[in-house]
Amino acid sequence: MTTLSPYDSMSPVTQAAYRAKGAAADLAPLPRAEKDDALLAIADALEVRTSDVVEANAKDIERARAAGTSETVIDRLTLTPERIRAIASDVRDVVALPDPVGEVVRGSTLPNGIDLRQVRVPLGVVGIIYEARPNVTVDAAALCLKSGNAVLLRGSSSAYESNSALVRVLRDAVGGSGLPADAVQLVPGDNRESVRELMRARGLVDVLIPRGGASLIRTVVQESTVPVIETGTGNCHVYVDAHADLDMAIDILINSKAQRPSVCNAAETLLVHQDIAPRFLPLALDALAEAGVTVHGDERVLAYGKDSKATVVEATTEDWETEYLSYDIAAAVVDSLERAVDHIRLWTSGHTEAIVTTSQQAARRFTQLVDSTTVAVNASTRFTDGGQFGFGAEIGISTQKLHARGPMGLPELTSTKYIVTGDGHIRR
Amino acid sequence: MTTLSPYDSMSPVTQAAYRAKGAAADLAPLPRAEKDDALLAIADALEVRTSDVVEANAKDIERARAAGTSETVIDRLTLTPERIRAIASDVRDVVALPDPVGEVVRGSTLPNGIDLRQVRVPLGVVGIIYEARPNVTVDAAALCLKSGNAVLLRGSSSAYESNSALVRVLRDAVGGSGLPADAVQLVPGDNRESVRELMRARGLVDVLIPRGGASLIRTVVQESTVPVIETGTGNCHVYVDAHADLDMAIDILINSKAQRPSVCNAAETLLVHQDIAPRFLPLALDALAEAGVTVHGDERVLAYGKDSKATVVEATTEDWETEYLSYDIAAAVVDSLERAVDHIRLWTSGHTEAIVTTSQQAARRFTQLVDSTTVAVNASTRFTDGGQFGFGAEIGISTQKLHARGPMGLPELTSTKYIVTGDGHIRR
Repeated sequence: MTTLSPYDSMSPVTQAAYRAKGAAADLAPLPRAEKDDALLAIADALEVRTSDVVEANAKDIERARAAGTSETVIDRLTLTPERIRAIASDVRDVVALPDPVGEVVRGSTLPNGIDLRQVRVPLGVVGIIYEARPNVTVDAAALCLKSGNAVLLRGSSSAYESNSALVRVLRDAVGGSGLPADAVQLVPGDNRESVRELMRARGLVDVLIPRGGASLIRTVVQESTVPVIETGTGNCHVYVDAHADLDMAIDILINSKAQRPSVCNAAETLLVHQDIAPRFLPLALDALAEAGVTVHGDERVLAYGKDSKATVVEATTEDWETEYLSYDIAAAVVDSLERAVDHIRLWTSGHTEAIVTTSQQAARRFTQLVDSTTVAVNASTRFTDGGQFGFGAEIGISTQKLHARGPMGLPELTSTKYIVTGDGHIRR
Repeated sequence: MTTLSPYDSMSPVTQAAYRAKGAAADLAPLPRAEKDDALLAIADALEVRTSDVVEANAKDIERARAAGTSETVIDRLTLTPERIRAIASDVRDVVALPDPVGEVVRGSTLPNGIDLRQVRVPLGVVGIIYEARPNVTVDAAALCLKSGNAVLLRGSSSAYESNSALVRVLRDAVGGSGLPADAVQLVPGDNRESVRELMRARGLVDVLIPRGGASLIRTVVQESTVPVIETGTGNCHVYVDAHADLDMAIDILINSKAQRPSVCNAAETLLVHQDIAPRFLPLALDALAEAGVTVHGDERVLAYGKDSKATVVEATTEDWETEYLSYDIAAAVVDSLERAVDHIRLWTSGHTEAIVTTSQQAARRFTQLVDSTTVAVNASTRFTDGGQFGFGAEIGISTQKLHARGPMGLPELTSTKYIVTGDGHIRR
């Protein structure tokens, strides 16, 4: 009665997507215990087969060195036995997290007696497109498996050997636990065309999550017909209000900018209310200088810079929109909280903005007017993180408004369905 | 310090989107009372200015008649004083609904003492692309306004005069209430290019909701870089299990198919377990015949058809995927519940599937295995509806898994943001 689609004539990517869809259907009704067993098997297998993975990783590193890749990127690419142990430990942490699938989100008995329940279900097939961090291969697979989703992994070509070795380990462990091995697949083909096919596999792939730099994310957003969750670009702001504790403001500024400048929740722009600027900026510029931060200032900041140890260069328009990810910060003096909000609205990537203030009204107004995934009051921008928020794990930080916003944990990897139960109810 | 984008050189659609974005920023922090006042002003103005709207509508109707448009479509296009009163009354119903904005979705105090709250906020700018139903203009604007969103309306060219007149009334009422009139805008330009621009306005428009036929929705999904919520295609199934109350099964089948065949939650395919087919199908075919329904049956259904009053024609592969929206139904006999599920998975649009059964195990298994927005047990498919579900209003029925699934009420027109409050907390 039903005929399957002409499977054999499909491209390898489409075939993989079909297999993923089949695996997802099998995973969806599984109880937590079976998924947890598979995750524990993955953690064990990673430790047992560490040398296979390290060997494969060595080939990627050799190739990267020959291509003149920077040591920073090679460091990200490198898997040591210690790092693999840490990855396995992260998988065990996922085992400890509650299973979001089956949670009743909303439920009621309708006036006609029908029972209505809205229940969390897996998304289905999740595609992850990412750069040269092979740890993402395992992290993403573990989170998808726990939430009942099949995953299609498309890592960077430069990590192809490492990812292939990791996925072999993952598939063997998943299959050995009695779950479908096709729940975890590396997208076949090590070329641009395979990414393109993945992005056009609407109907087979339920969501794509690009993890990486701004240009990767832009490409996926522009070319994908599969729904995309944008992640990770963070042009975060720290605004120091007219009334603020100066020490607190310095602490939050330096922590937000310099505790770990390479991550998306690091601050990239400082905005200072003009009333506090004469007292705050001299201290702030010295503290930034001490932390090794170059300041890209507007005219008023430049004026304060003359009497400080800080390196202050003139800001161009580009500085307001730059995610430096380095020991640089843009800085401007603003006439009011409202002007700070205007500046943020115009230039932010919508990730995280912080206000430092002693004024309850200012805190309330700033949190109302600023529309980013996270608004921090008297706290560092660095707290926007699934681990810090207590989600236990994070598949990324969504900077879009649809489906998920901010740090995404396991519930963000689910959808819902309604279950309507009657006794022969018909509509009048 | 901050320079605005070169506004004057923008296309009219982009300008409208920028104005919408500005209006959305103003709407977001408004309390419920101010939005409700504007909605009441809209309802009053629609009644006061009914004749303006009817006059404009007459021009559209005249044009449609001259173009040989079918009477069904002309009926949908037509606005009478009575229909406008009903539309105004719907707006008043929206006033009575709770405001989703500001709802705390999740909140906790983190181990370090930071207070974390996840709060509902408007999506921002919502684009609606729809066909010749001018009532959607007002419905959509009212729901968007209530949820703090600005709306960009792009109706069918054939309703351009009606929509223009309605939007004039809406904008005057909104502006007169002290809210930004640009919260409600008709997308300028009555051509394909303006739709295209709307679909590419990523960063200005937060979500597009196409409402209409399958081809409209397909176009928007394929061409849009703005995130899209797919709505409305319903290839719904009724499965009659091996053990089922025959009368209940007949009632649910006929209600699902024939109570209102033109809507997305009407049934399009009947699947019957082989064990009950000899008793159920003769009754079902007679009942369908009585309701004026033509049956497109597989071989086994055709065999039963010979002894019935029903019109039974041979089903082709196409029938399994067709959303008839008419007095037609596809029908097949299946060997088991699992084969019914396989059939549904292969052909469904993922809207609503119903099972009729007396078996608790069968009900449980069907609801677990079927992955559609709504799974009905012993109830008509026709209940999948925002009004029936008690949401009070509905902007559409999402058939996708991301963001919203099933009937979308006011909460589905919101996103969330996190508010992190500390006392100078920094990350160690």
